[in-house]
Amino acid sequence: MDIYDYNKGFELLKNRINIKDLEKIEYDKEVILAGWIINIKNIGNISFIILRDQTGDVQITIKKDIFNDLEFTKEFSLHTFIVVKGKYIKGIAKKYKEVLAEEIYLISEPADRLPIDENSYFEKRMNYRWIDLRDPKKSLIIKLTSYAVKYIREYLYNNNFIEIFSPKIISTASEGGAEVFELKYFDRKAYLAQSPQFYKQMAICSGFEKVFEIAPAFRAEPSFTSRHLTEFTSFDVEIGYISSHYDVMKVLEEIVKYTNKKIKENFEDEIKKYYNVDVFVPENIPKIKMEEVYEIVGKNNIKENGDITSEGEKILGDYVKKTYDNEFVFIIDWPWTARPFYHMKGEPMKNGTITTKSFDLLYKGLEISTGSQREHRYKILLEQIKEKGLNPDNFKYYLEFFKYGAPTMGGFGFGIARYIKQLLNIENVKEAVLIPRDPNRLEP
Amino acid sequence: MDIYDYNKGFELLKNRINIKDLEKIEYDKEVILAGWIINIKNIGNISFIILRDQTGDVQITIKKDIFNDLEFTKEFSLHTFIVVKGKYIKGIAKKYKEVLAEEIYLISEPADRLPIDENSYFEKRMNYRWIDLRDPKKSLIIKLTSYAVKYIREYLYNNNFIEIFSPKIISTASEGGAEVFELKYFDRKAYLAQSPQFYKQMAICSGFEKVFEIAPAFRAEPSFTSRHLTEFTSFDVEIGYISSHYDVMKVLEEIVKYTNKKIKENFEDEIKKYYNVDVFVPENIPKIKMEEVYEIVGKNNIKENGDITSEGEKILGDYVKKTYDNEFVFIIDWPWTARPFYHMKGEPMKNGTITTKSFDLLYKGLEISTGSQREHRYKILLEQIKEKGLNPDNFKYYLEFFKYGAPTMGGFGFGIARYIKQLLNIENVKEAVLIPRDPNRLEP
Repeated sequence: MDIYDYNKGFELLKNRINIKDLEKIEYDKEVILAGWIINIKNIGNISFIILRDQTGDVQITIKKDIFNDLEFTKEFSLHTFIVVKGKYIKGIAKKYKEVLAEEIYLISEPADRLPIDENSYFEKRMNYRWIDLRDPKKSLIIKLTSYAVKYIREYLYNNNFIEIFSPKIISTASEGGAEVFELKYFDRKAYLAQSPQFYKQMAICSGFEKVFEIAPAFRAEPSFTSRHLTEFTSFDVEIGYISSHYDVMKVLEEIVKYTNKKIKENFEDEIKKYYNVDVFVPENIPKIKMEEVYEIVGKNNIKENGDITSEGEKILGDYVKKTYDNEFVFIIDWPWTARPFYHMKGEPMKNGTITTKSFDLLYKGLEISTGSQREHRYKILLEQIKEKGLNPDNFKYYLEFFKYGAPTMGGFGFGIARYIKQLLNIENVKEAVLIPRDPNRLEP
Repeated sequence: MDIYDYNKGFELLKNRINIKDLEKIEYDKEVILAGWIINIKNIGNISFIILRDQTGDVQITIKKDIFNDLEFTKEFSLHTFIVVKGKYIKGIAKKYKEVLAEEIYLISEPADRLPIDENSYFEKRMNYRWIDLRDPKKSLIIKLTSYAVKYIREYLYNNNFIEIFSPKIISTASEGGAEVFELKYFDRKAYLAQSPQFYKQMAICSGFEKVFEIAPAFRAEPSFTSRHLTEFTSFDVEIGYISSHYDVMKVLEEIVKYTNKKIKENFEDEIKKYYNVDVFVPENIPKIKMEEVYEIVGKNNIKENGDITSEGEKILGDYVKKTYDNEFVFIIDWPWTARPFYHMKGEPMKNGTITTKSFDLLYKGLEISTGSQREHRYKILLEQIKEKGLNPDNFKYYLEFFKYGAPTMGGFGFGIARYIKQLLNIENVKEAVLIPRDPNRLEP
């Protein structure tokens, strides 16, 4: 047997099974497994390997009396990837199922020693993210992201939403913000979309009644908080024919309930095992008006524009946990000064402050979603742009969408990574994505 | 009644139903409908409006003896958006169901006359895409895109794939191509990903066995063909532990079968009505080796690097239709000269030409997918980069993925818009997306 005979290894892969599927196999049957070597021990005439694939670990026992010579095991090092043909036996090891090897081939051998282990510091682990993710605790994050998004879409398709794919390269800096990435687009300048805001509203103006998009969004924020990424997956919804922002909150509430319920049903044990977290499924989500939130969080946590600080969000999160035994809360009816020009104005606060028909959703004291009813009447929208001190010329295309009749509409943006971060109590949002981007991090 | 009383209009929207749902309602019941006015006729004491929402059209009859005064109908013009409360009656109109209006409020009135109609030229229609899409023939494209992607994901989740979200801002021009958009990333340069190729392979090196992504990809190609977009939705798959590229083609074949079957089941009538197309569901997809394809398409359609021309693709499409009665075909075992460095090399052609374990999938004579087994062995990969005359320093991060043990792997990229274009026999791919991007078009 030549362990370097790759073609024989490739051939064996045709009938390879998952390590977890050993539980369905009878003892003494022949099996083919493949994976990374995560441990090796040599004791004279016998070698023990712990082999890992996505579904679990297994002990591979290599005996000299089967192979004649164990010299070849010297070629193995940590994270060598091999394929093994052998007999599934009732072994004596307690922690692992055991396979007695009969043939082994290399699929790929490391060209260097492993650069990280579980104790490496955060930035170094991120530099070698693909090795970091071979740890099942880490890979659970990516799996949960995939399934959270699956459940979200399930809810939406069951409720007649259409998924759209809107352009990320745009001609003007959307929403008038400065924090936008600039691009060379042939002989002109272009920008990366900070959100699909304008296009999801365009879709409603196109006649679609309920749309969503789950796609990358880009923010050139030079900030290094545990909550911000320069590129993130934005989940966006827009609904036409609404009566008020309450219709939008209803949909968001249902999505959160459905998703957390499904996550709990399917991943409760893994989440408990690796993160010691109980998944909370809300029956309903309390709504607190911003003017009441001000009283709860106190003056020091109110920003000049009427927003609250991230410390204020945490205080409100604790308050809601104590008062309503809930991990979620809607802050509703935000002041006009804290919201973008396209939010529809609502009833004034008791002190006369102009509000908007808008909301934020907080999960364990962190904003994970922002939404509102939008102003869909061309003339009023134009007035609101001017009132914000913005130049209507910069919103020419956006304004056009409302020039030829438009339904009422409202929607929200929702940060998938922030949701996962809060679900698992992960400290830094950068740990909650496959590969993070921040002002310093463009690699891998 | 003041038609400008928006709040009353918003209030009515709470109980509004879809126009199509009239078929479930008894005559003489009260209903609330909303939509765009797409036709108006005034005949003395009576006005007829055709109202459209996403689900259909209805005739609204406005009688003077109910409203006292029909003066308000002068405020209506084409594409005014209104909400109507009225009685669903057994009307005399044959083409439309009929509602006798009792209350009408404006939701939003046009600020200008409609700039396009169905006869406007292509570029002008694209400038006003949201009006263009109010035509049900056009909106079907967007709906089918949403559902095609839904069915694709259904197949993948049913088969234990994980969805990943990889970064679109990258530090080096991926795949070594020149056709990449450059970006200002704080104080350095960055690029937009041309595909998630490297990251989906990274995911396999992270231990995930089967991954996919459906996300924007960017190509700075200064070309104006009917097949190219500068930004498009790329559907990408990568599968670990494979034995050869045949394992990858098997998955792609199953996806195409599943998706076309589901599309046929759910949209057959609409596709026939608006596009006069029968949806073809393949039982299997023939595989033709490139060396045989050369004989079928003839010398004039073989490019210098061993690829075939787009005319050659059409000839092959016709050949497959005639010979196999199939709309799909795999071209397999492409020459090394026509494939990127990361494709695994395979058996030589009869004339000795080096091939790769690779394939293209053609649909009605147009390439909609490209795939292969990848070279996963660090040393060989490094050699192949050099053999292509590329600088390994530009692939530093990519190469690292393979330095610490890697499974065999293979996958494909698949253009969603091209698939929809071919499905509906749409002439230009720009018509097959919500909003196209080409070197001249950055708006809306």
